[in-house]
Amino acid sequence: MYSPAVQKLIDELSKLPGVGPKTAQRLAYHLLKLSPEEALPLAQALIDVKDTVHFCTSCFNLTEQELCSICQDAGRDSTAICVVEEPGDIISIERTHEYRGLYHVLGGALSPLDGIGPQKLRLAELFQRVRAADVREVIVATNPNMAGEATALYIAEELRPSTASGTLRITRPAAGLPMGGDLEYADEVTLGRALTGRRDL
Amino acid sequence: MYSPAVQKLIDELSKLPGVGPKTAQRLAYHLLKLSPEEALPLAQALIDVKDTVHFCTSCFNLTEQELCSICQDAGRDSTAICVVEEPGDIISIERTHEYRGLYHVLGGALSPLDGIGPQKLRLAELFQRVRAADVREVIVATNPNMAGEATALYIAEELRPSTASGTLRITRPAAGLPMGGDLEYADEVTLGRALTGRRDL
Repeated sequence: MYSPAVQKLIDELSKLPGVGPKTAQRLAYHLLKLSPEEALPLAQALIDVKDTVHFCTSCFNLTEQELCSICQDAGRDSTAICVVEEPGDIISIERTHEYRGLYHVLGGALSPLDGIGPQKLRLAELFQRVRAADVREVIVATNPNMAGEATALYIAEELRPSTASGTLRITRPAAGLPMGGDLEYADEVTLGRALTGRRDL
Repeated sequence: MYSPAVQKLIDELSKLPGVGPKTAQRLAYHLLKLSPEEALPLAQALIDVKDTVHFCTSCFNLTEQELCSICQDAGRDSTAICVVEEPGDIISIERTHEYRGLYHVLGGALSPLDGIGPQKLRLAELFQRVRAADVREVIVATNPNMAGEATALYIAEELRPSTASGTLRITRPAAGLPMGGDLEYADEVTLGRALTGRRDL
């Protein structure tokens, strides 16, 4: 029913996460209504990103250079590595202004059912970094869900021998009640974790 | 915090309707994770659409030719014109298989507050078509909301003189309860319209 070019655009938009056929149709009609000067920058931005952006050779954050801006920053604490699943997680942590160390992006989390084993993630590169440099703390900030927890346990197991000398700590951000949340509406797992991890006032 | 190319992509994605900064970031990271072979077809589809798709010179539907496939179809009833706001509305009406006439796409609805007056829509072209050809019915299928209703009234007023001879009908799709709906949950305007427009069984 659509002309071939419109159908192709709708098909490509449907492949985006969270975009169903109806939304794809709506986006396509929006793009069709725009002037070329308004619509083409999106296509160009996508082409440019694929052309210039790649992974930092050290931490696998996204960058347009060899090393990302965080790895290049001499003011950061190179004895701490925060392990995250995706580059976007770095942005979230940076926004807190609570961390001044380096990062390591795994590119996902262990999920055997989806065929994602240790070799699909940048785990070997992480262990290599921890062994090669003077690293005192590895903060495993994978997501607090099944896959993220499994990944955190896997990393802790692999790094366990290095902690024997007492120079390396492996930590994980606290699980507990979100600020501004309500005890009544907390799920039992979160509330259980909050109680287990209770701190002296 | 993002590299310039990533920031540019996020900015461009944020301009899409219904896409906020968070969604734009998620979409951008999704596109960054894809291989160039997976991501670039979207950019290409957008470029192609801007290159090949334009408005039908008769009804302003989208087409890759001079006339859209509906205007080209000799089997359609050329004495009926269904007026819609957007090209997407044609798809919705075609899906019903209840209409075999031609269309006219206004490109929006009257909305003085947004600066959309009659000259911004393809109203002159509509009146021109109705006068020039042997048109027996104009179905004003603008949306059943404030702007759509105002546009329908405007069209009816303008075409009123042509109806005097009795050869031209101006109609509007029935407003009423949606099929599968529930009387209890119908809003009062819809229910009121449904009662006003009641039909003999």
